[in-house]
Amino acid sequence: MEVKVLKDILEVNDVIAQENAKLFKDKGVTVLNIMSSPGAGKTSLILRTLEAARKDGIGVAVIEGDIASKIDAEKIQEHGVPAIQINTGGACHLDAHMIKSALAHLNLDGIAFLIIENVGNLVCPAEFNLGENKKVMLLSVTEGDDKPHKYPLMFSESDALVVNKTDLIGGTNFDMDGFRKTVLNMNPDIEIFEISCTTGKGIDKWAAWVTNQLSPRK
Amino acid sequence: MEVKVLKDILEVNDVIAQENAKLFKDKGVTVLNIMSSPGAGKTSLILRTLEAARKDGIGVAVIEGDIASKIDAEKIQEHGVPAIQINTGGACHLDAHMIKSALAHLNLDGIAFLIIENVGNLVCPAEFNLGENKKVMLLSVTEGDDKPHKYPLMFSESDALVVNKTDLIGGTNFDMDGFRKTVLNMNPDIEIFEISCTTGKGIDKWAAWVTNQLSPRK
Repeated sequence: MEVKVLKDILEVNDVIAQENAKLFKDKGVTVLNIMSSPGAGKTSLILRTLEAARKDGIGVAVIEGDIASKIDAEKIQEHGVPAIQINTGGACHLDAHMIKSALAHLNLDGIAFLIIENVGNLVCPAEFNLGENKKVMLLSVTEGDDKPHKYPLMFSESDALVVNKTDLIGGTNFDMDGFRKTVLNMNPDIEIFEISCTTGKGIDKWAAWVTNQLSPRK
Repeated sequence: MEVKVLKDILEVNDVIAQENAKLFKDKGVTVLNIMSSPGAGKTSLILRTLEAARKDGIGVAVIEGDIASKIDAEKIQEHGVPAIQINTGGACHLDAHMIKSALAHLNLDGIAFLIIENVGNLVCPAEFNLGENKKVMLLSVTEGDDKPHKYPLMFSESDALVVNKTDLIGGTNFDMDGFRKTVLNMNPDIEIFEISCTTGKGIDKWAAWVTNQLSPRK
């Protein structure tokens, strides 16, 4: 019974996700859905990505998802980028309907690139399509290299994996080579980037991948 | 409709949680439910806690919750401590029924202290009582000091907050004084412990608190 309800919820979600995807395509907007544990550095990654995109003259906007608070949207707005905050109340993920509602408040004219920051959670966000072009997951080395075994869906569903906080790796027992092998074994097509949002290391390669995803503008 | 289903699920959960609590009381077992983000260090904290408890001759057991894998239960068993692994499939939290099922495979005779490691998630585990005596949340400083604003339920529901990875705080912008004020403002009764599972710093105070929670054995 509980399972049946979940199935229905996911089917309804997929229908709305397809509507969102159509709108994004019509407007020529490329959309990334960024997912991670709480505190892995999603907002910091977004700020670094915006910086790179704007240097190239690309119009950008952000949708922020959180259970509560407007902290992240305010951080983005401080940089002069349009940002909408979704507060999910209790829900532990964004869904396609929340994105559809947020889009009513966001003017996509002149926007080529939209970043969605999901709720901090390695589980449920992986199940809900939002209409995005690419799913990106972020893991910080301080979380440990055993996460692919424990949260396999997130690793297998993502198109890109950004490994953050590499500046702190010396204080951890994170085995990068073993971790890469494990992830590529689960998902051979995933692109892996090693970065530090604090020092900026590796951001150039990540930003180049992002630019490659952008749809040609109409 | 979705909200109604959730309400029913939580009500059924509470009934089973009360049955679990009665069993624990009858057996003289004190139970901690440990919750955190993925990779905050729950298993490391449990290993440190077991070490302290066994030095005092206290009989201990562990229930491990994860979406997938037996990694954590195996780590605990290596130390000669009885451990049961629950794999939730897709579910992002443990519920009382999962604990009840696990208890069928765990002999509580001679056990004074049971630790439950919840699924790595700062959202849903806070909503589901398991029949525990105390809820404990763990946060690592590498996750950032803004988490109480974003995940308020977890901070307001917990009896104790363990702040881990303090050995890495120098590489972060975590403001411990500000963080403590924010948390105590939301939950004045919460006990806060600053520790490092890597260096062992602060474990003694935490272990003393744990020992104080133990029920007198029959």
